[in-house]
Amino acid sequence: MPSGPLRTAIKVDLDKPAKDQPYLHNRWHPDVPFAGTIKNGETVKIECLDWTGGQIKNNDSADDVKNVDLTQIHYLSGPFEIETAEPGDVLLVEIQDVQPFQDHPWGFTGIFHKDNGGGFLDEIYPEAAKAIWDFEGIFCSSRHIPGVRFAGLIHPGILGCAPSHEILAEWNKREGELIQTTTLERIVAQPPQPQNVHAGSADEETKTKIGKEGARTIPGRPEHGGNCDIKNLSRGSKVYLPVHVKGAKFSVGDLHFSQGDGEISFCGAIEIAGVITVKVEVIKDGQAKLGMVGGKSPIYIPGPVQPQFSPGRMIYFEGFSVDEHGKQHYMDATVAYRQSCLRVIEYLRRFGYNDYQIYLMLSCIPIEGHVAGIVDIPNACTTIGLPMDIFSFDISPSVEAKKLDLGSCAMASK
Amino acid sequence: MPSGPLRTAIKVDLDKPAKDQPYLHNRWHPDVPFAGTIKNGETVKIECLDWTGGQIKNNDSADDVKNVDLTQIHYLSGPFEIETAEPGDVLLVEIQDVQPFQDHPWGFTGIFHKDNGGGFLDEIYPEAAKAIWDFEGIFCSSRHIPGVRFAGLIHPGILGCAPSHEILAEWNKREGELIQTTTLERIVAQPPQPQNVHAGSADEETKTKIGKEGARTIPGRPEHGGNCDIKNLSRGSKVYLPVHVKGAKFSVGDLHFSQGDGEISFCGAIEIAGVITVKVEVIKDGQAKLGMVGGKSPIYIPGPVQPQFSPGRMIYFEGFSVDEHGKQHYMDATVAYRQSCLRVIEYLRRFGYNDYQIYLMLSCIPIEGHVAGIVDIPNACTTIGLPMDIFSFDISPSVEAKKLDLGSCAMASK
Amino acid sequence: MPSGPLRTAIKVDLDKPAKDQPYLHNRWHPDVPFAGTIKNGETVKIECLDWTGGQIKNNDSADDVKNVDLTQIHYLSGPFEIETAEPGDVLLVEIQDVQPFQDHPWGFTGIFHKDNGGGFLDEIYPEAAKAIWDFEGIFCSSRHIPGVRFAGLIHPGILGCAPSHEILAEWNKREGELIQTTTLERIVAQPPQPQNVHAGSADEETKTKIGKEGARTIPGRPEHGGNCDIKNLSRGSKVYLPVHVKGAKFSVGDLHFSQGDGEISFCGAIEIAGVITVKVEVIKDGQAKLGMVGGKSPIYIPGPVQPQFSPGRMIYFEGFSVDEHGKQHYMDATVAYRQSCLRVIEYLRRFGYNDYQIYLMLSCIPIEGHVAGIVDIPNACTTIGLPMDIFSFDISPSVEAKKLDLGSCAMASK
Amino acid sequence: MPSGPLRTAIKVDLDKPAKDQPYLHNRWHPDVPFAGTIKNGETVKIECLDWTGGQIKNNDSADDVKNVDLTQIHYLSGPFEIETAEPGDVLLVEIQDVQPFQDHPWGFTGIFHKDNGGGFLDEIYPEAAKAIWDFEGIFCSSRHIPGVRFAGLIHPGILGCAPSHEILAEWNKREGELIQTTTLERIVAQPPQPQNVHAGSADEETKTKIGKEGARTIPGRPEHGGNCDIKNLSRGSKVYLPVHVKGAKFSVGDLHFSQGDGEISFCGAIEIAGVITVKVEVIKDGQAKLGMVGGKSPIYIPGPVQPQFSPGRMIYFEGFSVDEHGKQHYMDATVAYRQSCLRVIEYLRRFGYNDYQIYLMLSCIPIEGHVAGIVDIPNACTTIGLPMDIFSFDISPSVEAKKLDLGSCAMASK
Repeated sequence: MPSGPLRTAIKVDLDKPAKDQPYLHNRWHPDVPFAGTIKNGETVKIECLDWTGGQIKNNDSADDVKNVDLTQIHYLSGPFEIETAEPGDVLLVEIQDVQPFQDHPWGFTGIFHKDNGGGFLDEIYPEAAKAIWDFEGIFCSSRHIPGVRFAGLIHPGILGCAPSHEILAEWNKREGELIQTTTLERIVAQPPQPQNVHAGSADEETKTKIGKEGARTIPGRPEHGGNCDIKNLSRGSKVYLPVHVKGAKFSVGDLHFSQGDGEISFCGAIEIAGVITVKVEVIKDGQAKLGMVGGKSPIYIPGPVQPQFSPGRMIYFEGFSVDEHGKQHYMDATVAYRQSCLRVIEYLRRFGYNDYQIYLMLSCIPIEGHVAGIVDIPNACTTIGLPMDIFSFDISPSVEAKKLDLGSCAMASK
Repeated sequence: MPSGPLRTAIKVDLDKPAKDQPYLHNRWHPDVPFAGTIKNGETVKIECLDWTGGQIKNNDSADDVKNVDLTQIHYLSGPFEIETAEPGDVLLVEIQDVQPFQDHPWGFTGIFHKDNGGGFLDEIYPEAAKAIWDFEGIFCSSRHIPGVRFAGLIHPGILGCAPSHEILAEWNKREGELIQTTTLERIVAQPPQPQNVHAGSADEETKTKIGKEGARTIPGRPEHGGNCDIKNLSRGSKVYLPVHVKGAKFSVGDLHFSQGDGEISFCGAIEIAGVITVKVEVIKDGQAKLGMVGGKSPIYIPGPVQPQFSPGRMIYFEGFSVDEHGKQHYMDATVAYRQSCLRVIEYLRRFGYNDYQIYLMLSCIPIEGHVAGIVDIPNACTTIGLPMDIFSFDISPSVEAKKLDLGSCAMASK
Repeated sequence: MPSGPLRTAIKVDLDKPAKDQPYLHNRWHPDVPFAGTIKNGETVKIECLDWTGGQIKNNDSADDVKNVDLTQIHYLSGPFEIETAEPGDVLLVEIQDVQPFQDHPWGFTGIFHKDNGGGFLDEIYPEAAKAIWDFEGIFCSSRHIPGVRFAGLIHPGILGCAPSHEILAEWNKREGELIQTTTLERIVAQPPQPQNVHAGSADEETKTKIGKEGARTIPGRPEHGGNCDIKNLSRGSKVYLPVHVKGAKFSVGDLHFSQGDGEISFCGAIEIAGVITVKVEVIKDGQAKLGMVGGKSPIYIPGPVQPQFSPGRMIYFEGFSVDEHGKQHYMDATVAYRQSCLRVIEYLRRFGYNDYQIYLMLSCIPIEGHVAGIVDIPNACTTIGLPMDIFSFDISPSVEAKKLDLGSCAMASK
Repeated sequence: MPSGPLRTAIKVDLDKPAKDQPYLHNRWHPDVPFAGTIKNGETVKIECLDWTGGQIKNNDSADDVKNVDLTQIHYLSGPFEIETAEPGDVLLVEIQDVQPFQDHPWGFTGIFHKDNGGGFLDEIYPEAAKAIWDFEGIFCSSRHIPGVRFAGLIHPGILGCAPSHEILAEWNKREGELIQTTTLERIVAQPPQPQNVHAGSADEETKTKIGKEGARTIPGRPEHGGNCDIKNLSRGSKVYLPVHVKGAKFSVGDLHFSQGDGEISFCGAIEIAGVITVKVEVIKDGQAKLGMVGGKSPIYIPGPVQPQFSPGRMIYFEGFSVDEHGKQHYMDATVAYRQSCLRVIEYLRRFGYNDYQIYLMLSCIPIEGHVAGIVDIPNACTTIGLPMDIFSFDISPSVEAKKLDLGSCAMASK
């Protein structure tokens, strides 16, 4: 029998506040009511808001980024009841397509202000900034970062199944301990927060409970994946998600037109609203079958249509775990990766980009971030690969860098 | 005029103790005498010992690994005087070929004992183990890890120019501070060590000085690269190395037939003796030209002949910065990468490999290690990609894992 | 200024006869009136019918293929006036996206009957056959060819600018000579044919003229490309088309969800209706600038998102210019390619496919067809690469082939 | 047990005439005596002369090419007795490595004179020409074709098993018929030729017989492969060769450092002497198992280490079966491929290369030659992909071509 058009399991309304759309939610909690049902084996389309729920506008000021309300983010589509799924199973999700909305052919990349969100390099670059990206089919370019154009490796930033009550309790316990014991003078984790909680179609009592207990959506977490922000989890990928509650309660959102390994600026991908097409399949007792018992993290197989750059057209920047103040850290891949980032900034600055433009680029262009060596005490070594082919001028080390007039990204007013 | 065969700038003797070969050295120090000269623009072959100087044998016991003398390693070939090179320049090294010795067609991968070297997973896997790999042209396989065969991405683990006295002092200062201030109950860095110092052809006085001051070769360091252990720095690659002393004092060694991203078990690549063919070219004032002033780390462009695996033939394992004891760490990519490693072990164990076999594999097969997300507090997310095509049986998640009889790697006697 | 949604330059009606839609046409002739205008530098969407104008249905009989009316095909969208384009220019067309219609997620591959269209292997396989392909995002599969699923490399089969009167006369002359002088007992070329001519919005007089003179759309032709059927001319590609008349008169159509090199069965791609997004740019005097003066064929640069198969996951089948009757031909790559095709059929037959299923597959799966050696008299050598990864069972030569129950493609009634 | 160095099954002497080396031969005939034995499952090295047996010298004149003695070519190494191999089996040969001789780091590409060998474009380019290529590890470059440098995809041009007497008779019959019936005014095939026959260690009587009956080595032939000249049959490849006589009588030779699809100039690869490492394995009854019964052509699986060029860094040139005189041919892929070649010449000529330089390049650089469409009567469509990354200057269509001073290839004296 011929198949017809695919069912759209959730339609979102870009013109309506996210909090008024009951098939969305912004906390991980097993009690968020189902927003719909998907059959085992079914393929559906699911529409998603951008991760800020529309707070960021297509203009030339970063004030919206500076003032973003981070309690009103990550309105995920779902959770879906997956028929037959039970705890111990694995939900195999095939990402068959991801598309921006046809009449909304643009996205944004932002750098949050150090005092409101921050990001990987916020101690060096504390200001808010923004780039708007326009889409031309598979390509994107930005008036805020001239000289760059590339094909997006489009993907969802967030997908996962709801935690069980036990897992949720574990999350709150261990992240609470981090918050209590940290000596860092910055926010290290986000505890449950009743303000602006969106619990889907939950009644008031349940919503209150979810506000008190529900896990924030910012971090990915090992037991379910969640906000994993993996740039290669793109079209054609298969991801194996552990199921922890009856019906799975699968949610998805935070679509990215493109992202670099690390998504370093926090609002770092090219953030979009759009539609994802997924096929779901329940693998009964899958956690035992796949060696995932005990809250093991998801695995995935990438799709076959990643943009291809020849190895010889990439420039790799080494980074070691000696920080920018000359301090030696012990085998710290995070410090090393920050150094690789700074090396890219120093390199590209010579062509006329300002540092905030490069910081934005590092976040959203398809850089390849590798853990190169994590063995030779005390220096972890990371590398970042920068594709030369996305630039309209030659950035190879064999040519002399000439400063071009490359404008600026959008900045926030002081 | 027709070109003739290439000059071999250093020939090593596999049957003679490394310490008796004056064109080798095992410390980074500006006073190690030149072992030879290479013209600007010249292509030469350079022979290298394996990184243990022949301590590890082709047999079925890991006692040699357990008892390895770590003061007698990394006998580098060089240092070479590169004509015209001066501080502030960049030395462009094109790696034109790397080959194991024809009559020595095997290599080894080792796991050091926790009390003698250790490695990335030594708290979980404290014993010494070993695998011998036999080479068949571009392929390798091991009697200690059946079911795996792949083409090597052959490369040098170490290459770099000598530090200046100032840079060397900085290294000793910052690493000394780490040693003094660490709260970890393990060795966090190796201070200068006069025992078994090999200072090339230096006179006794200089040798004594080098023993007292010379930097150990274990870590790579940002100012010159050194032991960077980057698996993709293979045939056809170009690496841009900062020059810090007159004549550059370029050294190379620690050849690897193959390595995974991270080289996690310390002796983790397929370690070989062999010959590297390099072309050197001095870029005058290159550090200023390439944005590398101030001790910036090397950059490189990979060669075009990396083994190709289709994205759809890789399985990726997510890891987050929650450790194996359930403790939440703050944005720690090192912790996350260890979790990705453990996930691979749990996955492959189902097919009949023992954990040490997989730990060895993780170190030397071409796994792809990515910093996926380093933004969503408190969880860094890393991924490890495992190529399915190197296995002789189907390891994809779509088939049921059956335990095979896969023997064991070589273990040390108790 | 933010950009809005893209303009759709032509909308087609799938429920209306193609002949009644005045922005379509089915002949190459300089007098077909403009169907619309595109600015130099503009990006537009263009909707297209499938190449049979809807004659083939989503069912399980190939009678529609057997009885197809080949005078009613290739209703191209256009021709478009490209502002500023003049003879001697080159029209650079960037294919930014190609998509099947959302509510029409299927396509077809057909084998024409030897007496009505035929195809590359029609002397061996004279019957009509058909496969319907269902789309799941970037993937397709067919109930008529089980065991195969792959990502489409979607592209237009036809695009080009109108010929000048001079070029058109040349076409008619040389193809007429072939028709008159051939000794083959088959149709070797299609002369102008007034029946069912669609001349767009032309008046009756012009339409009659176009019917008498207009070039048929079946063959691609060197002077403008046209029906080139190049599988890699997919999303992200840039094609450089010679302009021969004022305003270029650019037309496009015959969209393919996927095709193998050669498109061997004539109706051989996965044929679809859909929408193509193109950006056009006029290169003034481009034919001189790019060495294309004198009716030289188009050149193109592929897009970066082709599905990737590892070389080691392809099986290549050699073919030589000795035909299936044992006759030796002189350096005939066409004969050699047919032998490569037959080798694939013999190989896959062992797994339970019938020959017509394989003939259909050869036409539409992403086989790689190479001219391997065209030098060693008298044997040209070609190869066809068959990707193993599109099959759900293992087809590698290292496993024993077991006959599976793989059904049949749709066949025509006798 | 540790494995030792590989056995070299045949050593050649570059300083001795090929005819005096009894482990070589230059005819395909079942009676050529075995030159050695290889065990089933064994890996061996086999040394090979270059295909002219040393006739071409490293100098700047093409007189040696012009005057080459084509009766003294293709001195193959072998034939080898493969233990246990019998007619009906398949010999699986894994090409584990191919290397030029270390002290012979150069090769040559030649264009034969139209009156002595000729080549694919000899009607347009009748003169003899030559380029010498120097090797730097995996790379090559030529003083005769400046501006080009690339990594070789090294491979044997010829490998195969001996024909049976029946197959040999079939070859002689069908090629004889072609010679007798051709209407072309050129040599279309090479009949048996007693002059300069090299029958290995055969006695005089056998040698005389082989001279009378033995098949010439120029063409590849479907029943055994032979001189297939497939550029991707490189390191890591597995080729499945039909066995027709007891012991297989496997021979190999004609090593190429690099070749383009088509090897169009006859002496078109970068021809070298060197050593190939192969592992042989007999698949009993393999012809039945693999669907190869009845003299079916070999199949192969490429190795994983082909040089990688991003699709977006290739320029493709379309060709159709209308020849350079404007004559329409019917579905002739050979004519189309010649047109694609001519298009490349016209394109590259703009940068300052002369036509013979480009003809040489087309033969030996890694161009990709595709049968794009072989369906749309009367025009076959082929494409040639030209990799931009092998040029030291930018050849993309987006830059203006400037004529450079690019010297000349070696030409023959008049």
